[in-house]
Amino acid sequence: MENIKSYVLQHKDRFINELIELLKIPSVSADAAYSQDVIKTSEAVKISLEKAGCDFVEICDTPGYPIVYGEKIIDPTLPTVLVYGHYDVQPADPMELWASPPFEPVIKKTDIHPEGAIFARGACDDKGQMYMHVKALEYMIQSNTLPCNVKFMIEGEEEVGSKSLSWFVERNQEKLKNDVILISDTGMISNQQPSITTGLRGLSYVEVEVTGPNRDLHSGLYGGAVANPINVLAKMIASLHDEDNHITIPGFYDNVQELSLEERAEMAKAPFNLENYKKALDLNDVYGEKGYVTNERNAIRPTLDVNGIWGGYTGEGAKTVIASKAFAKISMRLVPNQDWEQITELFTKHFISIAPAGVTVKVKPHHGGQGYVTPTDSIGYKAANMAYTETFGVPAIPVRSGGSIPIVALFEKELKSKTILMGFGLDSDAIHSPNEHFGIFNYLKGIETIPLFYKYFVELSK
Amino acid sequence: MENIKSYVLQHKDRFINELIELLKIPSVSADAAYSQDVIKTSEAVKISLEKAGCDFVEICDTPGYPIVYGEKIIDPTLPTVLVYGHYDVQPADPMELWASPPFEPVIKKTDIHPEGAIFARGACDDKGQMYMHVKALEYMIQSNTLPCNVKFMIEGEEEVGSKSLSWFVERNQEKLKNDVILISDTGMISNQQPSITTGLRGLSYVEVEVTGPNRDLHSGLYGGAVANPINVLAKMIASLHDEDNHITIPGFYDNVQELSLEERAEMAKAPFNLENYKKALDLNDVYGEKGYVTNERNAIRPTLDVNGIWGGYTGEGAKTVIASKAFAKISMRLVPNQDWEQITELFTKHFISIAPAGVTVKVKPHHGGQGYVTPTDSIGYKAANMAYTETFGVPAIPVRSGGSIPIVALFEKELKSKTILMGFGLDSDAIHSPNEHFGIFNYLKGIETIPLFYKYFVELSK
Repeated sequence: MENIKSYVLQHKDRFINELIELLKIPSVSADAAYSQDVIKTSEAVKISLEKAGCDFVEICDTPGYPIVYGEKIIDPTLPTVLVYGHYDVQPADPMELWASPPFEPVIKKTDIHPEGAIFARGACDDKGQMYMHVKALEYMIQSNTLPCNVKFMIEGEEEVGSKSLSWFVERNQEKLKNDVILISDTGMISNQQPSITTGLRGLSYVEVEVTGPNRDLHSGLYGGAVANPINVLAKMIASLHDEDNHITIPGFYDNVQELSLEERAEMAKAPFNLENYKKALDLNDVYGEKGYVTNERNAIRPTLDVNGIWGGYTGEGAKTVIASKAFAKISMRLVPNQDWEQITELFTKHFISIAPAGVTVKVKPHHGGQGYVTPTDSIGYKAANMAYTETFGVPAIPVRSGGSIPIVALFEKELKSKTILMGFGLDSDAIHSPNEHFGIFNYLKGIETIPLFYKYFVELSK
Repeated sequence: MENIKSYVLQHKDRFINELIELLKIPSVSADAAYSQDVIKTSEAVKISLEKAGCDFVEICDTPGYPIVYGEKIIDPTLPTVLVYGHYDVQPADPMELWASPPFEPVIKKTDIHPEGAIFARGACDDKGQMYMHVKALEYMIQSNTLPCNVKFMIEGEEEVGSKSLSWFVERNQEKLKNDVILISDTGMISNQQPSITTGLRGLSYVEVEVTGPNRDLHSGLYGGAVANPINVLAKMIASLHDEDNHITIPGFYDNVQELSLEERAEMAKAPFNLENYKKALDLNDVYGEKGYVTNERNAIRPTLDVNGIWGGYTGEGAKTVIASKAFAKISMRLVPNQDWEQITELFTKHFISIAPAGVTVKVKPHHGGQGYVTPTDSIGYKAANMAYTETFGVPAIPVRSGGSIPIVALFEKELKSKTILMGFGLDSDAIHSPNEHFGIFNYLKGIETIPLFYKYFVELSK
């Protein structure tokens, strides 16, 4: 498919500039202060879909942020691909760690990205990867090579739990009817070795509040005589793991599917260098659940991490105070078969039960989602693999990712179709971190590979 | 001494208004943003001492905030009282918990203060209690009853460790020469039962930093595979106490003086109602070291409290991140004989030693001070007790306080004189907390009692 190569080469600069314009809008869905920017981004996405060649695009209101829906139906008897992506982004803080402002995109070369990478919040997750699909559509329309129908569903609440998306999907099953769902919101092993994510972890995200005395107290006059909510919270958090780093919540592992030694051996084939891994993160050692290696700990095992903690005096200098309250945001990554709502209940029950006398504890569930595994013998998986093989010169490796895209399980339940996760980002792209970036190579390679998926999916569907 | 009563009554409103003006200046020494206000406060204190009748007042530069020195020497052969106080205040946050702005003083009646109390940061600690001495001097000058020489040393760094004060005292021993040091920076049992603080706890205040990966990471891709600095910090903090709430730092208790059963029995005589104590703090139970009661836990026992903790995402909503760093401010209250610098070393050595592989730990000592015990058979203590007895109608009870005034030990070492802690505040005045206040009764009673201390101290010194 030489035409696509030359088309991408010819329009490269425009493709990059269009993405940069989209990245300039700070669509942080977690922070109400940015709500106008989130809305603005949905409108920009609508316009881009119209320009790309959709013959119907609409901004659909929801209880939360709107969902952009677009479609190009060329023949109802042909298969339909539903493209999902999200236009919202993670909060950018800590701001001070960004080498350049998160919403002022710049292109810089890196060792891994000698052709340059676009640095901005959302560059990879998910504006950049979502926009590859828009540009791929543009090409297929311009070159009259679109082999089937395509629908787009781009949401604005992925980073905060996709609440409105499930609301929307449940109410629009006919409109969203499709034969396969295509998502680029994951990564691949390297620019030389493509991979397809076949497994995702589920998620349960909660916020806890520990209250001791009804007001902040002088630590000299009260220190040692009342429960200090911060010390107590630390004790409670520490008790959630045992000395082998197993999670201690009763019933937590009940539904966990243990992989067979064969499956674990298969996983172990994915190229991985522990020394490089530690070096990239400046770690003297890795850390995790006893009995599992790094690539298992972050993929096939459930985990519990504190994502944020705060309480007491955190300003400059010293304040001798015992805080009235301490808080933490805690998330659990789940594996297929663990039900996130049940896990949230187990956590809540357990966490409240371990609170000592002298404090009161509140647990507020934030959001969650189920894990997912996609079969490698499906038409969708095969088509994706053929596409990667053609553009990268090597077949893709199936990998289980530690990340969560809760809506994948939702799609299977509501829309009865399988999702193919064609990711083009790299672990080193620092998504959710300061200095997030997306390689120019990866961006253009994605635009080049996606039309091939359509081609092979339709061929295999015949 | 009826004259003082009537003088106070006559000038009551002016005394209150003068203090209110002083309280309007936000002299927060812990936060550089307020540095100009701290300086401004030192100038206001200088003027107040001149007006009160000191015949020499100066603002003494130091490596940090200035120290206001004032004196009234009536006869070098007579005894000299050195009054110490501080014009800086604690940070006011959390601001949202103040019923009225912390630096816009208002007078409100409370159950404990039917005559009204002044609500403002620093009202009791220590602007209000310091200013009682200025007004007591004014009275003694106006009524020609000052029986001896008096020196004032009012500093601006008490809430951040009095670093410059020790620098100043070491260099001005002749200038500060005195027979007794008088401080009102502590509390008393109740408005019906005065007490004199005879023991103070020492302090060691440190800040710890736990670093895991070199950047914030996506908790899905890395969760379970790398040490999470927040989880690790929680584990490390939790391990600092055993199940009996004893501190686990090796050597921590080595120099702790155990009180005799007699001494503990003596302490137990101070009026205390556990139910009221719990009720006042909305606690379902107290919490602390096994084998000691509340009034021992916060007075004669060393303690370790986290005063602040922070790390990861603490904003609105959810962010699935593994933070690169987590921080905590930790302070230890020490008892007489524990050396704060040695304890700081023990803590640092231990805390670094318990860090698991996969993180690096830094410990930064903030400041500290030694504990102190003052003898009840000294002239100063007797004079103070006689003064209280005359104005309150009942003798004062000697109590050990859990708080720290590190400079008291410094004074004994450098100036070779004993300190008398004549406190007029109440535990319920919420010092270091939102809605700090100081009773009008207590403020005026202090002004009324202090001149009697001078009278009896000189008489007993003859």
